[in-house]
Amino acid sequence: MSSERLIYLPLGGAGEIGMNAYVYGYGPKDNERFILVDLGVTFPDMDTTPGVDLIMPDIAWLEERKNQLEAIIVTHAHEDHVGAVGHLYNRLGAPIYARAFTAAIARHKVAEYGIHEGAVRTVSAWPEQIDLGPFKVGFVPLSHSIPESSALVIDTPAGRIFHSGDFKIDATPVVGEPFDAEMLAEIGASGVRALMCDSTNVFSTAQGRSEATLKPNLEELIRSQKGMVVATTFASNIARLQSLAEAGQAAGRSICLLGRAMRRMVETAVTTGILTNFPTTIPAEDAVSIPRDNLMLIVTGSQGERRAATAQLAQGKYLGLTMKEGDTFLFSSKTIPGNERGVIRIMNQFSEMGVDVVDDAGGLYHVSGHANRPDLMTMHDLIKPQMLVPMHGEHRHLREHAKLATERGYQGIVAVNGMMIDLTGDQPKVAEYIETGRTYLDGSVQIGAMDGIVRDRIRMALNGHVTVTVILDEEDDPLGEPWCELKGLPEIGRSGAPLADVLEEDLSQFIGRAGAKTLTDDDALEEGLRRVARKTALDEIGKKPEVTVVISRLA
Amino acid sequence: MSSERLIYLPLGGAGEIGMNAYVYGYGPKDNERFILVDLGVTFPDMDTTPGVDLIMPDIAWLEERKNQLEAIIVTHAHEDHVGAVGHLYNRLGAPIYARAFTAAIARHKVAEYGIHEGAVRTVSAWPEQIDLGPFKVGFVPLSHSIPESSALVIDTPAGRIFHSGDFKIDATPVVGEPFDAEMLAEIGASGVRALMCDSTNVFSTAQGRSEATLKPNLEELIRSQKGMVVATTFASNIARLQSLAEAGQAAGRSICLLGRAMRRMVETAVTTGILTNFPTTIPAEDAVSIPRDNLMLIVTGSQGERRAATAQLAQGKYLGLTMKEGDTFLFSSKTIPGNERGVIRIMNQFSEMGVDVVDDAGGLYHVSGHANRPDLMTMHDLIKPQMLVPMHGEHRHLREHAKLATERGYQGIVAVNGMMIDLTGDQPKVAEYIETGRTYLDGSVQIGAMDGIVRDRIRMALNGHVTVTVILDEEDDPLGEPWCELKGLPEIGRSGAPLADVLEEDLSQFIGRAGAKTLTDDDALEEGLRRVARKTALDEIGKKPEVTVVISRLA
Repeated sequence: MSSERLIYLPLGGAGEIGMNAYVYGYGPKDNERFILVDLGVTFPDMDTTPGVDLIMPDIAWLEERKNQLEAIIVTHAHEDHVGAVGHLYNRLGAPIYARAFTAAIARHKVAEYGIHEGAVRTVSAWPEQIDLGPFKVGFVPLSHSIPESSALVIDTPAGRIFHSGDFKIDATPVVGEPFDAEMLAEIGASGVRALMCDSTNVFSTAQGRSEATLKPNLEELIRSQKGMVVATTFASNIARLQSLAEAGQAAGRSICLLGRAMRRMVETAVTTGILTNFPTTIPAEDAVSIPRDNLMLIVTGSQGERRAATAQLAQGKYLGLTMKEGDTFLFSSKTIPGNERGVIRIMNQFSEMGVDVVDDAGGLYHVSGHANRPDLMTMHDLIKPQMLVPMHGEHRHLREHAKLATERGYQGIVAVNGMMIDLTGDQPKVAEYIETGRTYLDGSVQIGAMDGIVRDRIRMALNGHVTVTVILDEEDDPLGEPWCELKGLPEIGRSGAPLADVLEEDLSQFIGRAGAKTLTDDDALEEGLRRVARKTALDEIGKKPEVTVVISRLA
Repeated sequence: MSSERLIYLPLGGAGEIGMNAYVYGYGPKDNERFILVDLGVTFPDMDTTPGVDLIMPDIAWLEERKNQLEAIIVTHAHEDHVGAVGHLYNRLGAPIYARAFTAAIARHKVAEYGIHEGAVRTVSAWPEQIDLGPFKVGFVPLSHSIPESSALVIDTPAGRIFHSGDFKIDATPVVGEPFDAEMLAEIGASGVRALMCDSTNVFSTAQGRSEATLKPNLEELIRSQKGMVVATTFASNIARLQSLAEAGQAAGRSICLLGRAMRRMVETAVTTGILTNFPTTIPAEDAVSIPRDNLMLIVTGSQGERRAATAQLAQGKYLGLTMKEGDTFLFSSKTIPGNERGVIRIMNQFSEMGVDVVDDAGGLYHVSGHANRPDLMTMHDLIKPQMLVPMHGEHRHLREHAKLATERGYQGIVAVNGMMIDLTGDQPKVAEYIETGRTYLDGSVQIGAMDGIVRDRIRMALNGHVTVTVILDEEDDPLGEPWCELKGLPEIGRSGAPLADVLEEDLSQFIGRAGAKTLTDDDALEEGLRRVARKTALDEIGKKPEVTVVISRLA
């Protein structure tokens, strides 16, 4: 038996929907050659990551082995697959491979870090394959909600892997290649050792619907409105942009795209030849002078993002355009769990303006980009893998998908981030557990999720902050009284006196009682002052604030 | 024409789902007598109210007129209707009226503030009415998800008001009085000037389903499980607790209730005679020794609340009970928008344990407690009001409900918090705009939403915090260097040097350059130091932190 092994190691995406990053390795143990499939981001929230700009997989393990890394492969241009290539490129240094449109988006990302565009290499679709060390990789077109979404055929000396990427089964996807069952069946017939498969919609029991089913609904809706129509969807959902724009045009309206991300996506899609028949659009400055009933805006911000066009329209105006009574706002989108509050806030703002809000509650104006449960089963049966490894899902999705696979006679395994799976034998088996986690882009700095920085920010948000300053003279005697500054705390507590005064009084008493041993020891003094401040605040306001103590000693 | 007027003024609940508080007044302008219907809370979130414990309506307007207030009336015992009676009682001082069970819950609330239980008076149901100044108020039993939910008939010299409270149309509500269309039709036939109506489910187009439809589904589910079954729902959803317990019992399992709020609700319902046939339950200490397939737990925490039983079971154990592979966890509930992340986190924790999670995705294990759109129409037509004022809803719900009413021939009006509506004439009209808002219970202190306290906490969460201390001697010369302490910020920035060092260096240079005019002026010096600290941090880490400057002058 060979001592070489074929391994799979998710660093992101297996345990969450977001920040996809999957490592494949082949070679002698601990001396494999690697490829990394996708390098995406996920988005922060106030609950767990306040102030963070982006969340990326922790790639430390791979960085330590960067000389073994052949390539970074990007399956498609969604942020959760390509979003981190700019931020992390310099730590890995391997060339990036993607199809034309995806490569163009990746080049924008690396260019922001001043990285030469030659770092990103454009590849052709299957049946072409590129040689990357022991791997031969082919990009297999699949339908999804963005053009060029590709599964990967990864041929290795230990057999063929089929990495699905993100996909749905759509024979009429409006933009991009239709689902080609015949081609997949051929790939499957050649013998596939392992299928790594999208799990996003494993809990959706109905068969998926085609993007093409939306246009008649959209057209009917838009046609029946008397005021301006504004629609939002993901900037990167190019098929939807096409559906919306075509429906608007058919309803006799001029189309205007608002939002930088959306305009860039469409421009890139046109430039790379993906979009050939996108309806003519007009710039915002022209839109203002078009009668409202002849105008349709397609805008960013379907998830309630505070700075996007939707939120700005809900608050008043955007680029001189305003919404008013009798207008219609359409969410041609699904609200991602966690974004509900923001989206609902916007719906209510529109309601206050008298704008009618339409969403997908009735199932007419949105279809998912991911394969539903029956469609996953179709994929399994086309590829007929020896092993099935669910990916692109939270734990519950991976577990459900593995159960589904096992019930249907495939060898399913739940592999989460950090679990290195050896695919070489008859059965997938866990080879090793790798320490993984999350890296935050915080302002311009990369910090670790466990560094305690964000934890301190959360604590200040929950508990407020007190600064205590004390000055000691050359003899370690206090010079004047301790001084307190509050931030994020009520001024007056239970006693009716200003909280700062009560704190200063108690801290002063503490210092008065403190012996020389405490007064000469910064750590002991700081700890004592903090303890008293927290205790007093708890009595006064029912909260224990975060405390920064500054002890100054006159030399 | 009389100079007396009948007014309606929502202080909470009309513009959100939560913190209900509706004022009715009758009498000469500015000298009316008032009743307050409900005094509820709503719940904080990290996005907008980090560290806040509860959110309540701002009752300042009514407090200023407390001598005109006859009574506080509580329609039912849900937190969004009764939750603030303890916290705000002393500011209003009027007696609280409610039916027996609701009154018992209200007494628990005021008792926490040491208020005598005589403050809460128990009333009987319609057709009895109580005299409250110019008002005669009757409590009309309606079906909802908690017993004793009551609409109010409010008779005034200017006519009859029907205030729906929370309701659904349910002929078989399992616990509590069934919906009595005949009684409502009688009330309607007597002539109703205004219907104030629940709007929660105005966007739900299907007819509502009865609580009684659930038991067979629940029983079938529970019976088919091999391990322990744990179900969660709202602690106050007593009908659901009954449905779950009956289904569990029918499936041959011992029932154990976990979670303080749930036990208190059931105990109070039993004590007040509302629950007469609740299945026997066993205490947690007995449950641990019962075979898993004979045991069912009913637990708090359906919304993912961090300290509730569900979250604790998901993290390991609760009162000695643990879940494991083969067990089933049922969410017999709907996730309230905004709570998705917390609920999903728990689902994934259970998935990691091998616990099967079942929710209401298939519509089998939960029904809403509120009237859907067709049921609202039924209510309108039973009461046949001259005017219809939607309440208990966000703006979009109120607007949609008013549109629905108007389309169907009623005079609908959107009245949001702070909008005083004169109901005396032929049409509802806005009499005045009152300043309203939100009061936060923050630890043990009540603070205003606009006080800036929470805003500062949010800023620290987003931007981190720097403390800058400077000591100046008797001649206003700096003594030593400025000192910086960071909280919630990365230690190292772009330059590779510690951020604190870079800040201190730049601040030191600023002080060195500062003239006497700045050094002698605390405000100018503080402002300058803050500006430099923020600018340097922006360069180093791409963030502008919150800055507390402490300037100490040696006297």
